Amino acid sequence: MAKNIKPRSQDYAQWYLDVIKAAQLADYSPVRGCMVIRPEGYAIWEAIQRDLDRRFKETGHVNAYFPLLIPQSFLTKEAEHVEGFAMECAIVTHSKLEKTADGLKPGNPLEEPLIIRPTSETVIGAMYSQWVQSYRDLPLLINQWCNVMRWEMRTRLFLRTAEFLWQEGHTAHETAEEAQEETLRMLDVYAAFAEDTLAIPVIKGAKTDAEKFPGAVTTYCIEALMQDGKALQCGTSHNLGQNFAKAFDIKFLGRDQQLQYAWTTSWGVSTRLIGATIMTHSDDEGLVLPPRVAPFVAAIVPIFKSEEERNTVRAFIDKVLTSLVGADELAAAARRFGYNETPTYFFDSTTGQRIVVDWRDARPGDKQYHWEQRGVPFRFEVGPRDVANNAFVLKRRLDRSKAVVTLDQASREWLRQQLDEVHKAMLDKARQFQAAETREAASYDEMKKILAEHAGFVRCFFKPDKTIEARIKEDCKATVRCVPFEQPGTTGKCIFTGEESNTQVLFAQAY
Amino acid sequence: MAKNIKPRSQDYAQWYLDVIKAAQLADYSPVRGCMVIRPEGYAIWEAIQRDLDRRFKETGHVNAYFPLLIPQSFLTKEAEHVEGFAMECAIVTHSKLEKTADGLKPGNPLEEPLIIRPTSETVIGAMYSQWVQSYRDLPLLINQWCNVMRWEMRTRLFLRTAEFLWQEGHTAHETAEEAQEETLRMLDVYAAFAEDTLAIPVIKGAKTDAEKFPGAVTTYCIEALMQDGKALQCGTSHNLGQNFAKAFDIKFLGRDQQLQYAWTTSWGVSTRLIGATIMTHSDDEGLVLPPRVAPFVAAIVPIFKSEEERNTVRAFIDKVLTSLVGADELAAAARRFGYNETPTYFFDSTTGQRIVVDWRDARPGDKQYHWEQRGVPFRFEVGPRDVANNAFVLKRRLDRSKAVVTLDQASREWLRQQLDEVHKAMLDKARQFQAAETREAASYDEMKKILAEHAGFVRCFFKPDKTIEARIKEDCKATVRCVPFEQPGTTGKCIFTGEESNTQVLFAQAY
Repeated sequence: MAKNIKPRSQDYAQWYLDVIKAAQLADYSPVRGCMVIRPEGYAIWEAIQRDLDRRFKETGHVNAYFPLLIPQSFLTKEAEHVEGFAMECAIVTHSKLEKTADGLKPGNPLEEPLIIRPTSETVIGAMYSQWVQSYRDLPLLINQWCNVMRWEMRTRLFLRTAEFLWQEGHTAHETAEEAQEETLRMLDVYAAFAEDTLAIPVIKGAKTDAEKFPGAVTTYCIEALMQDGKALQCGTSHNLGQNFAKAFDIKFLGRDQQLQYAWTTSWGVSTRLIGATIMTHSDDEGLVLPPRVAPFVAAIVPIFKSEEERNTVRAFIDKVLTSLVGADELAAAARRFGYNETPTYFFDSTTGQRIVVDWRDARPGDKQYHWEQRGVPFRFEVGPRDVANNAFVLKRRLDRSKAVVTLDQASREWLRQQLDEVHKAMLDKARQFQAAETREAASYDEMKKILAEHAGFVRCFFKPDKTIEARIKEDCKATVRCVPFEQPGTTGKCIFTGEESNTQVLFAQAY
Repeated sequence: MAKNIKPRSQDYAQWYLDVIKAAQLADYSPVRGCMVIRPEGYAIWEAIQRDLDRRFKETGHVNAYFPLLIPQSFLTKEAEHVEGFAMECAIVTHSKLEKTADGLKPGNPLEEPLIIRPTSETVIGAMYSQWVQSYRDLPLLINQWCNVMRWEMRTRLFLRTAEFLWQEGHTAHETAEEAQEETLRMLDVYAAFAEDTLAIPVIKGAKTDAEKFPGAVTTYCIEALMQDGKALQCGTSHNLGQNFAKAFDIKFLGRDQQLQYAWTTSWGVSTRLIGATIMTHSDDEGLVLPPRVAPFVAAIVPIFKSEEERNTVRAFIDKVLTSLVGADELAAAARRFGYNETPTYFFDSTTGQRIVVDWRDARPGDKQYHWEQRGVPFRFEVGPRDVANNAFVLKRRLDRSKAVVTLDQASREWLRQQLDEVHKAMLDKARQFQAAETREAASYDEMKKILAEHAGFVRCFFKPDKTIEARIKEDCKATVRCVPFEQPGTTGKCIFTGEESNTQVLFAQAY
């Protein structure tokens, strides 16, 4: 058992922090609630970005960049919006440090305070109102990758930090129908990404009014279940109707020659997805990475006792690498700059995924441990005895299983297939967990009992209502995670009011 | 002549803004001095990022993310550093908007003001001091892609804006020699990128003390010459010595068992490179993009008068596309979402470069004009007469030349070769311009005369000196752009003092 990681059963919150620390994914920064994303963690974000960006572009979107700072007056133009974000604003009030007798002090006060964007509907709305004149200018399908700030009280690395990285899509359309199509299309993109790339099974649904985005007509979301039975919102897609178009005067001359307001949407996912990935798959030994976002798909650990054994092992590893990445990449990697005794080879240059060989001067056991805690899907052990058998030992991080692989088995296709198998196994495992931890409740008492005993999702008939939801949240810390798209097609009694309802919802405690 | 673009000869500054506006690259934002990078401009930044990021990774670097906000006390730890940035700081002083009788006001003042990073040496230094314990932890080779803020008085889109996007590399090393090697290695990476990718010829050299980065021991730079004869600094690489290691206590136990300070470097390029690209290559008709960062490498303009002609032209364009992007991509593009009547096809999926077909309901002349002003390297015109000849008309943006290309000539390799030729022609043209606009001066009077008549680079013997440089700047608005690595190997008289000097420098007026 890993000594530096608290088991999940003893202290789940500490386990999560220990996994992050052991894998060197992130640190808290000197500024309260902000995080430093270390290279091992940022590489996961790069993999997420690359995959999602491709999906966005395939659905017709382009990227752009809007300013970090938003005039306070902009934020207040949409009433619900400012209400939702006012308490979390980071506010710039001065534009200079000036020398005073007591040292440097902020000088040059600004005429109007500027808010560091908590989200960019307002400043993007202001630009869209300049860019959109006619129906010919629509749709506008723009995404932005950037940092945002929401100064929340309780923070947790990746899941909730004052500053975080995300993408925010902002689109403007000619009709309400097109905006609704776009909102659902992007929700589907998120759901497919979560399952196909992160191996996280998600439930698609709509938020209740109590939980929707400030300023949205309807918020849709994907919800996942973590190993402690708490739900995590992994992505949201908002139909904003004409709310922001009216607040920011996004008007166009329609096909009917009438001036009308555009229909807008916005949708986002953030570095929180890294937290979701860690919490869904990792175990008491540390990080377990889904293969399609693993920066290193395999770590090769050489075992040798003499210079001669080292040479034998090295020659064999070169053969394995030739099979897995090709002779050209082997030569290119050798030409590349490499101080650090752990040269890396591109397994797939389009995704940036690599294989690493650990030649550091350390014990093989320590190296195994190193790569295990970093969640690398496969480790290959190569010692003189393995070389004599023309084979190496394959260790799977997911289930810690071992297998002997001969040199002629090893090929690019073989490794890809191994990675696909692991992906599928991880998704299946998470699906089974989610199914087992989703329970039905026919009454409020039943729900309270389930939440107290198991946490997890509780599925029940319910009539969404802000006041009642607030009361339930106070009672059992649970909120309506979503109204799932999949409904039974029957009616039942609302667990709280007893009224007949045709709507089932998912309750859960949530991050 | 383009009606919406002022000729360079009449008003160079206005020409630059007109080119940006016509190509829809960027807009000023509602916040003074900040810019909105529009999709057409951001796509150039994405191409720059992709190419540079590959170069950084090939030289052993990894990416990470450090916080946006820096405690004021951090900034003041390195004396020269705070001196250099104090006047341009954007300062966060409050963390909440509170309701008052006069509406919302900043509430909850922070204990310590926070600075939006103007650059990240300080916060990264604080983290490195935690991460580095032993020589085994070195070198640290980390890069960050992010936004920074420097509130300057006079702004100009891309060249100087309050907020801009950049990358900043920050490395820590065991020895002074390694830090120096790294500093020069990254300067070489920048120079190779500027020439091989942006087709911008640059001069490599060192800054004088008067012009170096606040806190650096030595700053190296690449300097380019714009079409108005003004120089533009395109990238800098700083050897920071032990200055920041001492300020932030980055210490390690060396091979000799002694505790010692690390040696650090930093290096950066920014969205300013987009400005450099525009100013180096564009003409009075608008933007001219170097082919390797052009989001669209070719725009196909169909010409037809009837539905029948449209069908004929369409079938032929499909054949051309099959040759240029392959049948698989043609099918994939057809499956992709496309509202906007200008479907795009990946010419190279690893670089994201595309070919666009303009089926919009507009006159062919307007379409030509549209793509010309956006700087697309090639346009293909396809009308019924061309189809009859089994050919299309190729128009090169660079020199507005025309050629007839038959269908069997058109292939992926053919287009790549055409693009390489254009790249080479653009680089050659810019090199010739730079050579012609670099003049030697043997005396201060001669330099003043050259700068008054031509602008451009003035090469001369000089003994760098802060006071003298300040005086020259006042006299003729020129600064020492760099002490070029290429030196004549002889001595000569300093143009200002007349003293014997073995150093030639480049003076110029600069952006």
